Amino acid sequence: MGMTMIEKIIAAHTNRDKVKPGDIVNARIDFVLGNDVTTPVAVKEFNKIGIDEVFDQDRIAIVPDHFTPNKDIKSAEQCKFIREFARDKGIHNYFEIGEMGIEHCLLPEKGLALPGEIIIGADSHTCTYGALGAFATGVGSTDMAAAMATGYTWFKVPSTIQFVYNGELKPWVSGKDLILYTIGDIGVDGALYRAMEFTGETIENLSMDNRMTISNMAIEAGGKCGLIAPDEKTFKYLENRAQRDYTPCYSDDDAEYEKVIEYDVSDIEPQVAFPHLPENTRPISEEGDIKIDQAVIGSCTNGRMEDLRIAAGILKEKQVHHDVRCIVIPGTQDIYKQALKEGLIEIFIEAGAAVSTPTCGPCLGGHMGILARGEKAIATTNRNFVGRMGHPESEVYLANPAVAAASAIKGYIAHPEEVL
Amino acid sequence: MGMTMIEKIIAAHTNRDKVKPGDIVNARIDFVLGNDVTTPVAVKEFNKIGIDEVFDQDRIAIVPDHFTPNKDIKSAEQCKFIREFARDKGIHNYFEIGEMGIEHCLLPEKGLALPGEIIIGADSHTCTYGALGAFATGVGSTDMAAAMATGYTWFKVPSTIQFVYNGELKPWVSGKDLILYTIGDIGVDGALYRAMEFTGETIENLSMDNRMTISNMAIEAGGKCGLIAPDEKTFKYLENRAQRDYTPCYSDDDAEYEKVIEYDVSDIEPQVAFPHLPENTRPISEEGDIKIDQAVIGSCTNGRMEDLRIAAGILKEKQVHHDVRCIVIPGTQDIYKQALKEGLIEIFIEAGAAVSTPTCGPCLGGHMGILARGEKAIATTNRNFVGRMGHPESEVYLANPAVAAASAIKGYIAHPEEVL
Repeated sequence: MGMTMIEKIIAAHTNRDKVKPGDIVNARIDFVLGNDVTTPVAVKEFNKIGIDEVFDQDRIAIVPDHFTPNKDIKSAEQCKFIREFARDKGIHNYFEIGEMGIEHCLLPEKGLALPGEIIIGADSHTCTYGALGAFATGVGSTDMAAAMATGYTWFKVPSTIQFVYNGELKPWVSGKDLILYTIGDIGVDGALYRAMEFTGETIENLSMDNRMTISNMAIEAGGKCGLIAPDEKTFKYLENRAQRDYTPCYSDDDAEYEKVIEYDVSDIEPQVAFPHLPENTRPISEEGDIKIDQAVIGSCTNGRMEDLRIAAGILKEKQVHHDVRCIVIPGTQDIYKQALKEGLIEIFIEAGAAVSTPTCGPCLGGHMGILARGEKAIATTNRNFVGRMGHPESEVYLANPAVAAASAIKGYIAHPEEVL
Repeated sequence: MGMTMIEKIIAAHTNRDKVKPGDIVNARIDFVLGNDVTTPVAVKEFNKIGIDEVFDQDRIAIVPDHFTPNKDIKSAEQCKFIREFARDKGIHNYFEIGEMGIEHCLLPEKGLALPGEIIIGADSHTCTYGALGAFATGVGSTDMAAAMATGYTWFKVPSTIQFVYNGELKPWVSGKDLILYTIGDIGVDGALYRAMEFTGETIENLSMDNRMTISNMAIEAGGKCGLIAPDEKTFKYLENRAQRDYTPCYSDDDAEYEKVIEYDVSDIEPQVAFPHLPENTRPISEEGDIKIDQAVIGSCTNGRMEDLRIAAGILKEKQVHHDVRCIVIPGTQDIYKQALKEGLIEIFIEAGAAVSTPTCGPCLGGHMGILARGEKAIATTNRNFVGRMGHPESEVYLANPAVAAASAIKGYIAHPEEVL
């Protein structure tokens, strides 16, 4: 019996020939990540361990992206604390505002997340790097602390559910819609502690940006990770980026899956996840008449170049509805730069959108577009839990960038075809 | 005996031939302004008055610029409250994020502040419009409420101090340096409840943007307003902007000034105001060795096109120092747009600055770059009071955009010539 991708990656990091679901292993970690919310706790735990040095100064990234540029004194103190830790320990990948971005957009861009690697991050959407064929998963701050000290952490090997997507996507349907559709199908605990493996011709035909959107939301189905087999697109993406040598892993033909779920995607419409769970998905034709107060285009889910290109294509020579605040947040400084060169930022500004410096901002109710009581937002983000973007009585509807941009123009949740 | 500019403006708004310092008058108001901090209080007071309509739907502006895009639920609730008030009362000049900017950059740009007018704003830097020859002054929220209801408010006519600037400015010396130098000379209460009248060949030679910087900081010397006589530059600036007819007022040749203060500007260096008062100014050659953590380029004082051009000129093909967060905040969406067209935003991003959507943000310790304990910032803003930009033990140094940009590159407070 062969192994799935996750089993092979874990085996390769434990010097074992074979692992199987349920095994408890102590695995070598290739990279450790923290942000301004989770790293302060990790640093306090690290300091309790009583060693002076981190396991590897090149294999840790600290990205202050949640409440930055500092929204208040508390966030300023947190950033100062982790900045000083990074300086003190010689951690090279400390990314300051102005040179950085949202962690899960930034690490792939900087070639710091690679196929076949194990990456843990003190942030739940660390699973994004599964799109590159890495076993990447979110951990708590104490696990981050221990990994910074030792370069190891323990796992229970997850079993794998394979998701097979075949067929051609309709216009305006993207990776975001596939993952929303999938979560709508299996529910927010449908892949609890499972490795999700996304495969099939539809996935093969997707861009890296779209693949990252899919893997990013694996956690929204409870997945331990969301893997996509590296292919030529992956290797091309990593050319001139990869900061380390890497060895891709692939599922064996005779690998054992807990379950295989197949989708014919050809009838899938753009999806909208209604409050207050990502599983509350509806095809946009059935969403009814939802007036919105805010549209957020960005986040680690949909703040990449392709997302901005699609949103700009919709907003070009149009105006954001007077009753809507449209906030566009490029995922990283490099994405911002590229969007500038392509004229996208100009399109957003001309359309009356507020363009922010990279930050997680409103996605987690951090800052940069918080909702008041009763307000509704359409967002390209990943979670629409109660109070996620502000007041407990506000509502977030999740969608792809084209739907968010079209809705910003119309003032209600709209299909992109309504504005073109 | 003739009248000063302020006396003439007030007389014209009270149907009196003559007013003199100390007179208490009830004056007609041309325009009323509020922001997201002050308008909620004003609206509550307005509602107590028990009338349904505002005095004039075209003569009120509400600009949510301080804590926007909403930094938290409280600011979201405040914005919602004033947005609904504006809709309910038919106030046309409600400026939403994405279409707006910092109030005191926005109103002149939109032609809503005009020569010879009386403008009150529930914000202390309303005095900015003195650069256009308007009697513009900050008031409390209750005064804003009463003026929204009646179109009138009362004043004690201030006496006038005339400030005469002659001579040619050294390179890198701007309006910001003139006003800092002046405040350094007379102190933060040196013009308490006086009309400051800025005149002389140096002022005549200044651009509108530089003049607005000077008038903006009149309040930092305690001034009731900071007037500059309208001239051809003013009228050219207002072409295709002015939203109303206007009648400029000028001081009579035989006007009576409380005091006349003359400066020869030819030896003035770029100024730096040390913590914790704008009067603690030093010429940059005497500032010593001040390491900085943050540089803020923006605000109602220095967030205009000319300011951004100067900062971009310094930052072009340079890099922000790794230990510095450099935050650039265009004053309005139109300024952002123009800066895009001129390639300035690209220069900032390439240099490693974080470019924000227009907001007052860090200037008042609101958001978008708050300081931690012990941190130091150089800022083109207007106040460096204890805790103004964050922690009570942080420090703010006020300077012009060239000095702020040069300091961002060097990591310490630097003269622009050090980086060119």
